Order: sequence, then C-alpha cells, then structure tokens
Amino acid sequence: MVIQSEIVLKARPRGFHLITDEILSQLDLGKCRHGILNLFIKHTSAGLTINENCDPDVRMDFESVFNRLIPENLSFLRHTLEGPDDMPAHIKASLVGFSVSIPITDGILNLGTWQGIYLCEFRNHGGARKIVCTIQA
Amino acid sequence: MVIQSEIVLKARPRGFHLITDEILSQLDLGKCRHGILNLFIKHTSAGLTINENCDPDVRMDFESVFNRLIPENLSFLRHTLEGPDDMPAHIKASLVGFSVSIPITDGILNLGTWQGIYLCEFRNHGGARKIVCTIQA
Amino acid sequence: MVIQSEIVLKARPRGFHLITDEILSQLDLGKCRHGILNLFIKHTSAGLTINENCDPDVRMDFESVFNRLIPENLSFLRHTLEGPDDMPAHIKASLVGFSVSIPITDGILNLGTWQGIYLCEFRNHGGARKIVCTIQA
Repeated sequence: MVIQSEIVLKARPRGFHLITDEILSQLDLGKCRHGILNLFIKHTSAGLTINENCDPDVRMDFESVFNRLIPENLSFLRHTLEGPDDMPAHIKASLVGFSVSIPITDGILNLGTWQGIYLCEFRNHGGARKIVCTIQA
Repeated sequence: MVIQSEIVLKARPRGFHLITDEILSQLDLGKCRHGILNLFIKHTSAGLTINENCDPDVRMDFESVFNRLIPENLSFLRHTLEGPDDMPAHIKASLVGFSVSIPITDGILNLGTWQGIYLCEFRNHGGARKIVCTIQA
Repeated sequence: MVIQSEIVLKARPRGFHLITDEILSQLDLGKCRHGILNLFIKHTSAGLTINENCDPDVRMDFESVFNRLIPENLSFLRHTLEGPDDMPAHIKASLVGFSVSIPITDGILNLGTWQGIYLCEFRNHGGARKIVCTIQA
C-alpha cells in the first residue's frame, strides 16, 4: 500500500523549525499498521532533519553552528548572483539532506521521545516549501 | 511485505562503531528477495551512517574530524545545561542522519565490499540505543 | 511491487556531477504509479545527494566548500596509506550520505524544478561507481 500527498508548508524565516505537528495534522497514518513515512522536500536550499523537540535554544544553536560551518561571503564562491545566503544554503541543505524516512508502528510515527521533524530553512526569504509525503505500508 | 522490529544496541563509548554484525544477527532477511532495509535510531545525539568496515583507524579519524568540525565549548551556544558534549552531539547527529536505507538483494544486504554500518555515538555516556528495523520487500 | 537493478556509472573526475539523466535513462518508472525510488551507492568514498540542476558553478562551489570543510593533510589523521584524498573522502561521503529516496508520482520522479541528482566523487581517481536502484510501488 502506497499513499502519497503533497503538503505546502507556510513560509518561515531563516532557521530551524519544528514541523512535526503541521505534518501529522495533514496525514492519516491510522490505516497503516507497520511501514515507513518518507518526507521529501522539493527544494535545493532548504532541508529536512530530525532533532530535539523541546528546547527552542537547540534550534537557535543549530542556526549559529551551521552559519559558522558554512559562512557567507567566502571569497572563492562563483554562484553568488542570488545573494550571499544562496550558495551556503545549497551546501547546508545537502549536509542535512532532503528527505527523512521514519518508521510507522501501529498507526503512529515511531519517533523517539525527544525527536521532532525539523524544516531547515536556509534562505533569508525562502517562501512556502513543498513536501511530498509517501506512506508505504 | 513489511517486517518491523526494535533492536537495543548495548551502550558504547563515544565514537564510531561498526555494528553490521550486531544488526544482522537480529534480523531474518532470508524471506526477502528484493527490498529495502531501513534502520532508524530513536535518539537525537547519536546517528547512523555507512563507511569503511576494515581499518579501525578510519573510525578513530571520524571521531577526530567530527570534533574538529563541531568543537565543544563554542562561546555562542545556548543549550549547554546537559554538558559540553550535548549540543555538538545534536548537530553531528543531524550531519550523518538518523536512518540508513540499504537494498536487500536475494535475501542479503547488498552492501559494497568495504561498506559497514556505523553507530555514531556522539555523547560521552549515551547509554543503550534503540533502533527500529523495517524490512520492505 | 519491488523492481531492483544495478547501474554502473562511468568513472568521473573528483567533483560533483549531475547524473539525473544517466540514471533515468536506465530505469523504467512508467509501470509505477506512486512510490519511492531509492538509489544506493556501494562505495565509502563517494556519495549521492540532490541539488541545483542548472548552474555548473554550483557544483564547483560544492567542491571548494567541501575541501574547506574537510581539508587534506590534517596532521592527526591515522588512515593515510591510500593517499591524502582518501580519509577526507570517507568523511565527506558520510556527510552527504550514500542513498537518496525520491518520490515517484504518476510514473515520473517527483523532483522539484531545480533539483537534480548528484554523484559526489570525493577521490582523485575513484573509477566506475556502482548504484543499486530500488523502485517500491
């Protein structure tokens, strides 16, 4: 059984955002006993990851550490026409990745206690973001 | 066909650990002709990846390079209550990721000759770690 | 339904290479209404990711930024027998990852407008690379 849908996430500011509830509110996992949920983001300067779902400071630290890791305005960059946040955003997105695959068990997402789904918005003004959700059960 | 189970990996020290045999000894892939094995770790400060399965120096170099990449005690970090290894562990885990999806072919894991599955333990005392194993065939 | 095949990508120089067309020309997605394509690279010093499919400068900037992120000749490395590009290649490959899982919708890959599949060749002379393609529908 494959169930597929597309979700549009509202535009968010640059940073790491907890989107577990926004995703789950648009999916019906109840029909699925055991399986996998694949979330895939159809962009190249935003990514998806999983991380701590409680302390907002964790998401702020993610933003600071990623900016230290891939600084803007590196002198050797060639792809600079779309602004100083663009090329670093492409790199950061490939570091976290564009999809997450999460087990579904007894009709619910089998995340750990402290795990939540993050939208990693790496552009200053990224706009709405499209996610393809595929349930395989 | 979906077969799902949960494995508890024994506690290991901080570092990169080859766990291919520990995983395979707890799975029955024989019923599966072609498919995918998804391994998902239910934590936010340990990750899963694939890498070289032979020379233990590779895993030691992984630990050194990841510590250089995301040092402890960065002055701007906010989430510091759980110790200096905690916030770097969250970042490192999102860099390697929380799941691996590996093809199953003719009833065995279709890894390359030099590929093994790594548990990436980023905490000093991470304890036992839970992995959800999902076979789709 | 699971359809699995192995593709051999021709040897490419070190760098990031757009391989969407080479992959798609060897797959028949038409039988698949909705599902997931998993591509898995059977190596430990090359990886797969998704990124911008238009401007070749993006791929050159990826190479420059990854070399800055994980430099060669770090004095503390132990696994150095296979040359200065080898251990950095292992690390870089685990940062981008060894597989991509992309939704298939109405018989075609459901990539975003600007998304393409990258082979990330991290060795100076990596040779041909094997990819296992698994369609689940």
